[in-house]
Amino acid sequence: MKASVPSPINAPRRLLMGPGPSDTHPRVLAALAQSTVGHLDPYFLQIMNEVQGMLRSVFQTENQLTIAASGTGSAGMEACIVNLVAPGDRVVIGVNGVFGGRMKDVAERAGANVHTIERPFGQVFSLEEIAAAVEQHQPSMVGLVHAETSTGACQPMDGVAEIVHRAGALLVLDCVTSLGGRAVNIDAWGVDAAYSGTQKCLSCPPGLSPMTFGPRALARLDARTSKVQSWYLDLQMVRNYWAESSRAYHHTAPINMIYALHTALSIVLEEGLDARFARHLRNHLALRAGLEALGIRFAVEEAYRLPMLNAVWIPDGVDDAEVRSRLLNDFGIEIGAGLGPMKGKTWRIGLMGETSSPRNVLLFLAALESCLAQQRFSFVHGSSIAAANGAFQ
Amino acid sequence: MKASVPSPINAPRRLLMGPGPSDTHPRVLAALAQSTVGHLDPYFLQIMNEVQGMLRSVFQTENQLTIAASGTGSAGMEACIVNLVAPGDRVVIGVNGVFGGRMKDVAERAGANVHTIERPFGQVFSLEEIAAAVEQHQPSMVGLVHAETSTGACQPMDGVAEIVHRAGALLVLDCVTSLGGRAVNIDAWGVDAAYSGTQKCLSCPPGLSPMTFGPRALARLDARTSKVQSWYLDLQMVRNYWAESSRAYHHTAPINMIYALHTALSIVLEEGLDARFARHLRNHLALRAGLEALGIRFAVEEAYRLPMLNAVWIPDGVDDAEVRSRLLNDFGIEIGAGLGPMKGKTWRIGLMGETSSPRNVLLFLAALESCLAQQRFSFVHGSSIAAANGAFQ
Repeated sequence: MKASVPSPINAPRRLLMGPGPSDTHPRVLAALAQSTVGHLDPYFLQIMNEVQGMLRSVFQTENQLTIAASGTGSAGMEACIVNLVAPGDRVVIGVNGVFGGRMKDVAERAGANVHTIERPFGQVFSLEEIAAAVEQHQPSMVGLVHAETSTGACQPMDGVAEIVHRAGALLVLDCVTSLGGRAVNIDAWGVDAAYSGTQKCLSCPPGLSPMTFGPRALARLDARTSKVQSWYLDLQMVRNYWAESSRAYHHTAPINMIYALHTALSIVLEEGLDARFARHLRNHLALRAGLEALGIRFAVEEAYRLPMLNAVWIPDGVDDAEVRSRLLNDFGIEIGAGLGPMKGKTWRIGLMGETSSPRNVLLFLAALESCLAQQRFSFVHGSSIAAANGAFQ
Repeated sequence: MKASVPSPINAPRRLLMGPGPSDTHPRVLAALAQSTVGHLDPYFLQIMNEVQGMLRSVFQTENQLTIAASGTGSAGMEACIVNLVAPGDRVVIGVNGVFGGRMKDVAERAGANVHTIERPFGQVFSLEEIAAAVEQHQPSMVGLVHAETSTGACQPMDGVAEIVHRAGALLVLDCVTSLGGRAVNIDAWGVDAAYSGTQKCLSCPPGLSPMTFGPRALARLDARTSKVQSWYLDLQMVRNYWAESSRAYHHTAPINMIYALHTALSIVLEEGLDARFARHLRNHLALRAGLEALGIRFAVEEAYRLPMLNAVWIPDGVDDAEVRSRLLNDFGIEIGAGLGPMKGKTWRIGLMGETSSPRNVLLFLAALESCLAQQRFSFVHGSSIAAANGAFQ
């Protein structure tokens, strides 16, 4: 009963400049490959504790319940929603990209009565818009996307929690693309629950979702009268497994992925958050200078641009798929296509975590010039490199 | 803003003889550590196709939709239930251990009207019991556990599907602990949907859940009028990402874990299913001979014992925690504690995948003799080794 066996894994070495995953550090890959231990092994429990401590530093929070869900970022989104929303609850969700739309979908599946505030892709919400929606709908939860991975827009957070909390609502924040690449100040911002992904600015392979829950979120959870609809993501049980005092088996944690996250978080904290954010900004500005020298425009207004995810309009007459395919096949560089209404109109160029380096900025610009030349797009050869190098000075 | 950074990952080398995870082959660990590529990279899409093909071989099925959920085995359980059950549906679930109980809980959270058939831990269901429950409740789904990880009991499957299908119901099967260690014949048994885990007899680290869905399950899914309550596990979308013809982004797959599963499945198929099942059985029989020579009894009747998970009664006067702790600390061997009503009364000794070898059987028996001697348990020294070696002849 022998079946045919394919060739062994022989993964190409890509430069991951899309919307995630980003490049993984060799130390993270080496940690992934360490021996698997049991999910209740004393050594593994220690590693879980350390992961929680480091996640608190990265989220800038004192929240005890700061853990990693055993799924990708979308599982973290679902965990936040299904635990904090009961059927019939009114919620307000900001939709200005694909991931706000996903949050709306998840909340509807949880039985919530969902009201959206909407903005065209690439824009963000004003405090007035948020306040008006909260005033009108008196929700129990407000969900916003800090860093819209589909558009490259960053939602300003100052003053948001005050509006949300005045109405007695919880503030839930999507930090999938921002965490580890620019400030995510959970406690200072008054965010009650937030989730992220490992494969963006933390530069760990995808598979886990860092999450944090503050005291108001936990009070809501404790006051639930109905069961959480997801067994797998039920925080009442998941948190007992992560509790430092007494561990209760829930599901088998993804052991080796937790090793990888532990290592990725260590690298983040060794660099230091401020230095890491400055690096992301510096490389973004150099990339911007280079792209603008080619006449390429950003899709997001300057004040709201994410440094780790650069969404730019594809120049007229340039073939989207052809350029992305050539970047991948000739230079091993992955960038992202547009999503939703931006499909075919934008590229998403990621400078996340390990990927965010001067050498990747220069290599990408040089490779892009090659692709644009092949497309007979008119530009001054070498101008993007000169501009980026100028920005690096 | 520098935070303290813990020591790097330095995982101890354990011999994993519990209920999973099992030992991982170095080739699997090496694959985990290969460079991350994008989740829509042509290379990764090829790997996904190959994983699907190998999973079909291991599940012994022609089902097109044979994939890996981006979560551990419990996520696979939840995926099967929430996709195939709509609120108000009547379902029958067999509960003869912790995992049958979990399936009941998951189905209730999905809004099902759940009827259980129950058996004491360690026992299995007769066709008559199943037929009586199906006749009485006329369910739309029947859920059974093939290999109860909490008890070591194996549910016979001959004739079950006929009973279930006669009532127009779907048959859903938990194969978490059996897949890759003994026959799981999805098509021959008439199973409509099944799920497993990677960290048992496939000997891949935990984090993914192999699943397969047959034509009757897909027809049920296509006929749904309500949305699946989980966005993350919604097969209508997940299957578009795994479709070989046209890929639609859903969530970011756990890339490196898929490399590991690809490699683990390759190792399974290189050995061949029949040879692999024979190996599991042979080592189980040797372990049995050794344990019985010490006067230790199995918790499950011989005809229904799982070769990969040996649940045995802890001898009177022997300290459960002390023995497990000594096995771990002095010999680096992990075995499992009892679960549910068997807590403190049984040990669960796993011989799964890579762990199932003659040398591990002998090492475990020798180490157990050491621990039992320390507990002043009365036995003939060396008798378990002699008996196991006898069984190996």
